[in-house]
Amino acid sequence: MSLKRFLIGEPLETAREKQERLNKVMGLAVFSSDALSSVAYGPEEIFFALVLGGTALLSYSIPVAIAIVVLVLIVASSYYQTIHAYPSGGGAYVVAKDNLGTRPGVVAGAALLIDYVLTVAVSICSGIAAITSAFPGLYRHRVLLCVIAIVLLTLVNLRGVRESGKLFSIPVYIFIASMFLLVGLGLVKIFSGQAPGPAAAAQQSSLVQIFPLFILLRAFASGCATLTGIEAISNGVTAFRPPESRNAGITLIYMALILAALALGITFVSYHFGALPAKNETMLSQIARMIFSVGPIYYVIQFSTAFILILAVNTSFAGFPRLSSIMASDGFLPRQLANLGDRLVFSNGILILGAIASLLVIIFRGNTHALIPLYAVGVFLGFTLSQAGMVRRWFSLKGAGWRRNALINGIGACSTLVVLIVITFEKFTRGAWMVVFAIPVLVWMSLRVKRHYLSVSRQLVIQPDYHETEFKHHSVIVPVSGVQMAVINAIKYAKALSNDVAAVYISLNPAEEAQMRADWEKYGMGVPLKILESPYRSITRPLLDYVDQVREKYPDGIITVLLPEFVPSKWWQHLLHNQTAFIIRGFLHFKPGVVIISVPLHLQK
Amino acid sequence: MSLKRFLIGEPLETAREKQERLNKVMGLAVFSSDALSSVAYGPEEIFFALVLGGTALLSYSIPVAIAIVVLVLIVASSYYQTIHAYPSGGGAYVVAKDNLGTRPGVVAGAALLIDYVLTVAVSICSGIAAITSAFPGLYRHRVLLCVIAIVLLTLVNLRGVRESGKLFSIPVYIFIASMFLLVGLGLVKIFSGQAPGPAAAAQQSSLVQIFPLFILLRAFASGCATLTGIEAISNGVTAFRPPESRNAGITLIYMALILAALALGITFVSYHFGALPAKNETMLSQIARMIFSVGPIYYVIQFSTAFILILAVNTSFAGFPRLSSIMASDGFLPRQLANLGDRLVFSNGILILGAIASLLVIIFRGNTHALIPLYAVGVFLGFTLSQAGMVRRWFSLKGAGWRRNALINGIGACSTLVVLIVITFEKFTRGAWMVVFAIPVLVWMSLRVKRHYLSVSRQLVIQPDYHETEFKHHSVIVPVSGVQMAVINAIKYAKALSNDVAAVYISLNPAEEAQMRADWEKYGMGVPLKILESPYRSITRPLLDYVDQVREKYPDGIITVLLPEFVPSKWWQHLLHNQTAFIIRGFLHFKPGVVIISVPLHLQK
Repeated sequence: MSLKRFLIGEPLETAREKQERLNKVMGLAVFSSDALSSVAYGPEEIFFALVLGGTALLSYSIPVAIAIVVLVLIVASSYYQTIHAYPSGGGAYVVAKDNLGTRPGVVAGAALLIDYVLTVAVSICSGIAAITSAFPGLYRHRVLLCVIAIVLLTLVNLRGVRESGKLFSIPVYIFIASMFLLVGLGLVKIFSGQAPGPAAAAQQSSLVQIFPLFILLRAFASGCATLTGIEAISNGVTAFRPPESRNAGITLIYMALILAALALGITFVSYHFGALPAKNETMLSQIARMIFSVGPIYYVIQFSTAFILILAVNTSFAGFPRLSSIMASDGFLPRQLANLGDRLVFSNGILILGAIASLLVIIFRGNTHALIPLYAVGVFLGFTLSQAGMVRRWFSLKGAGWRRNALINGIGACSTLVVLIVITFEKFTRGAWMVVFAIPVLVWMSLRVKRHYLSVSRQLVIQPDYHETEFKHHSVIVPVSGVQMAVINAIKYAKALSNDVAAVYISLNPAEEAQMRADWEKYGMGVPLKILESPYRSITRPLLDYVDQVREKYPDGIITVLLPEFVPSKWWQHLLHNQTAFIIRGFLHFKPGVVIISVPLHLQK
Repeated sequence: MSLKRFLIGEPLETAREKQERLNKVMGLAVFSSDALSSVAYGPEEIFFALVLGGTALLSYSIPVAIAIVVLVLIVASSYYQTIHAYPSGGGAYVVAKDNLGTRPGVVAGAALLIDYVLTVAVSICSGIAAITSAFPGLYRHRVLLCVIAIVLLTLVNLRGVRESGKLFSIPVYIFIASMFLLVGLGLVKIFSGQAPGPAAAAQQSSLVQIFPLFILLRAFASGCATLTGIEAISNGVTAFRPPESRNAGITLIYMALILAALALGITFVSYHFGALPAKNETMLSQIARMIFSVGPIYYVIQFSTAFILILAVNTSFAGFPRLSSIMASDGFLPRQLANLGDRLVFSNGILILGAIASLLVIIFRGNTHALIPLYAVGVFLGFTLSQAGMVRRWFSLKGAGWRRNALINGIGACSTLVVLIVITFEKFTRGAWMVVFAIPVLVWMSLRVKRHYLSVSRQLVIQPDYHETEFKHHSVIVPVSGVQMAVINAIKYAKALSNDVAAVYISLNPAEEAQMRADWEKYGMGVPLKILESPYRSITRPLLDYVDQVREKYPDGIITVLLPEFVPSKWWQHLLHNQTAFIIRGFLHFKPGVVIISVPLHLQK
C-alpha cells in the first residue's frame, strides 16, 4: 500500500479532472510527437528494403519517399475532414462504429489497440537506438534499457502526467529545428559538392532482375511506417482552444507539411551521404555525424530524437487506456478497464499496455527493424475503416459539398486500402501474420465479452413480481467443529435469524464425537446438534449433501449457512489454522440459493 | 480434481487404517534400508577426507572404519535399551520431550525433521549415482533424474504405500547378499594376491605434516554418515509382532552387526583394490567392476544399491510426515500437518518433504558429497538428546539394573556428543553452518507457533456470562451499486433480519447518482438509501467510514453488512466483473464486530 503511494502518489479528487486547453503551437507539440518521430525510423526502412536488391537500387529511395509523401498528404486531407465532422474527437473506433456498424467499429478498435502497443514497442526500441548510436557501449544492454524506459513511463503515467503542452513543447521544437538544420546543412553540402556521394553501386542482387517492382513495393510498404501517428490530432480535437475544429485542422496541416518535408529531406540527404542501414548505428546518427561530426549538435540531435520517440510512447500511454475505457464502457472489454484509478487515470489500461509492450521488446530483443512489419497493418486497417466510415457518412448526410468531401475521403480510403493490402502481403511472413491473426482473435473476444454483459443485464432485470415472492421457510445451518466462544457467538446470531437452526458437526473420530456431544449438551443453548459421518474425512462433502437434504425438505425455503470464524491478529497466524471456513465458503459460493454468513471473532494477539 | 484422483487414487475410508505386523525377517527389511544403505556412501566419505592429505594416508581408512564400527555398536546398544523402555515407539522427540522437557524435545524434533529431509536428498543423489556409474551417459542428467525420483516417491507416498514387508524384503536381502558376496570375493582376491593393491602412495600434502590428527578427525567425522538411520527401528517398535520390544531389539542387533561388517569390509576391500573417490563413478561401483567385471552381477549390485537407497528415502517419507503430525498435534507445527489426507496419509507433510528435498537436490546439483556435511549434525544431535533422555529416565525411575542401563546410555550419549562436536567444527564451513543455523530457527518458530495456539485457545474459552450478552441493536447495511435483481433479493433478505436496514450507495458521478435516486424511489421497498460521497473514487473507504459511524451510534449493537452478489456460470466470466464484493469482504474481515452476509444470485449462462 505505502509502496504504491510512494510510486504513484496520493489519490486525486474526481473534481480535479479537467483539461488544459491547447493553442496551435502547443497542440502541435503535444499531438505530433508520434507522427514526427516516425522520421527516425521510416526513411531508414526504405533503405533497408532497397539494399536487399543491391546498392544500385538505392537511388529509388527518392521516388519511393515522394510516393510516401503523397500518401501523407492524402491521409492528412482525409483526416482534416474527420476533424471537422467529429469536433468531439473522431478516433477510428468511433467513426467506424457510428457509420459502418458494430463489427467494423470493433475491428477498428482492435487494430488501434494493437497499434498502440506496437507504437510503444517500436518507439522505445528506436529511441534507445538513438542513445546506443551515440554510446555504442550501451548497445548490448539495449533490451534492459528498453524495459527500464517502459517501466518508468508506466509509473509516470500511473501518477498521471496531464499532457503538459508547455513542458513538452520545448524539446519537440528543438527536435523539429535540429532536423531542419540537419536537412538544410545536408542540402547545402550536397549542392556544394561536399557530400561523400551515394554508396558505390557495386553489387546488384539477382532478385532485382527478376522482381524489380517487388523490391520497390517492399520499400514503399516499409516506408509507410512514416505515416504512423498521423491520426493523433483527430482523436484529441477537444483538447484545443475554441474554435476547436478549426485550430486542430490547421495544426494537422502544419504537422503533415513538416512530416512530408522531413521524410523527403532525410531520405534525400541520407542517399547523397551514402548512409546505409547498420546494426548498431541509426542512419540518422550516421548523417548527423557526417554533417556535424561528434560534438554538441550531434548529441542534441540524438537526445532530442530519443526524447521525441519517448513522447510518442507517451501518446500511446494516453491513447490506449482512453480507447480501452471507451470500448469497456460500450461493453466490449472487461469493465475494469473503464474504472478511473485513484490518480484520475485508467490505471488498468496503463498497466496492461506496459506489460505487453515490455514482453514484445524482450521477445524481439529490442530490434526496431524486426518489429516494423507488425506495425503498419493495424495502422492502415484503422485508417481505411475510419475513412470508409467518413465516405458512408457523407453519403447518408448529404450536406453541402458532400460529393467533394466524399471524394476526398474516398481517395484516402482507397489509397490506404491499397497500402494495407500491399503491406499485408509484403510483410506477412516477416511478422505481419501475427497481427493478421491477433486482430480477429481480439474482435471475437470483444464480441464474446459484449454477449456476456448483455446476457447478465437481461438476467438481472427486475422481475414484475419482485416484491411478491416471499420465502416460505428459513433454515439456518451452523457448521461447528467444537464448542468455543466463536461458535457460541455464531449460534446466538443464528437464533436471531430463524427458529429452524441446526448445528452440524462432522464426525472424524468417535472419541472426539462423544466429547462434542457432551459439550453440546452443556453449551448448546437448545439448538439441535446434527452429527454427520464422514468416512473419507472430507469436511465439505457431508456438509454439501446435508444442504441438499434440507433443500429437498423445503424446496421453496431459503437456506443460510452461518460460519463461525476467528480472525487472527497477524497475517502469518492465518497459516496456522485450517482454512476450513474459507474452503466451505468457496464451495457454497457456487451452490444456488444458499446465503453465506461469516460471524467472525477477532483475536487480540 | 480428477487429475488428483488419477495420480493418488480414490479416497480411503478411515476404518481401513490398520497396520500389518512384521516378523523379524520382514522387520529387518523394512527398517534397515536407511541404515544399511549408508554403506553406499559412508566408506567413500572416509576416503574422500583422507585423499586430501595425499594417497599415503589412505591406509588409515581401516582404523577409522574400526572406530566407526565401535560407534555403531555403542549407539545400537544404547537404542536397544530405548526399544525396551518405549515399546510404543521412542523417537528422539518423544524420548527427549518426556525426560528432558519441552525445549530439548523440540530441538530433537527439529534436528530429526532436518535429518529426514537430508536423508531424502542424500539417498536420492547417492542412488542416482549408482545408476549413473553403470550408465555414464546419464551423468549430466543426474539433477533431473533425482527430481523425477523424488516426484515419483512423493506420488507413491501420497497414494499411501503401507510398509509392505513382503514386497520390499526381497531386494533388501538381494542387496545384503550381494554386498557380502562382494566383500567375501574381495577378501579372497586380496588374500590370494589377486587384488591390484592400494593406490600408489605418491604424493603427500603438506597439510598432513602439520595437522595429521586433523585429517584423521575429518575422515572419522565424514565416515559417521554411516550411522544414519540406525534409530529407525526404535521409532517403529509397534510395527513388530508381539513380543514387540524383544523382536525389535533382536532385529536391531542383527542390523547393527550387518552394518558393522559391511562398513568395515567395504572399506578394507576398497583400500586393497586401490579404489579412489571419483566424480562420476562411486567407489562401490569401482570395486564391483574390478571384482566381477561389467556383467550381470555388477548390474545386480548397482541396481540393488540404487533400490535400497530409494527404500531409505521411503523411510523418510514415512518418518517425516509422522513426526510432523505428532509435533503438530502437540501444537508445535501448523495444525494442517496433523490432518490425515484422503488416502490415510499425512499428505501435507509428504508434499513439504518432497518440495524441500527437490530444492536441496537442485541447489547442490545432485552431488552427494556436497550434501553429506549438512547431514550428520542433525542425526547426532538427535542421537545425543535421545540417549541423554534415556540416562535421565534411568536416574528418575531407578528400576532394576538402572545403573548398568544408565551407564550404557551414558556411554552412547557421551560418544555421540563428542562426535557431534567434532562434526560440527569439522564441517562447519563446508555446509554444517546451514544446519547449525536452521535448527534454532526451526525451534524458535515451533515455540512461537505453540505460543500462538495457546493464546488462541485461551481467547476462545467460553465466558461464564456467555448466554447473557444479548445484542441491543442490529444495524444492517446493504452496499448497492444499482438497482437489479441481485440487489432486490438482498434487500428482501435484509428486511427479514432487522428493522434498521439501510442501503448504501457510493456516488462517483452526479448523473448516475440522480438516476440511482430515481430508481430507488421506485424499487427501494421502503428501505432508506444513504448516499456517500467518494471524492477519491474509492468504494471501500467511505463504506468503512460509514460502518464506523454506525458503530459510534450504537456502541453495544451488532452490525451486519449484506453484500448482494451475482455468480457467473463460467470461470472466465469472473474476470469480466469488478470484484467489488470480494474486496469489500476482504476489508470487512479485519473489522471487529461486523458480520458479513453474501446473498448470491446465480447466473444461468
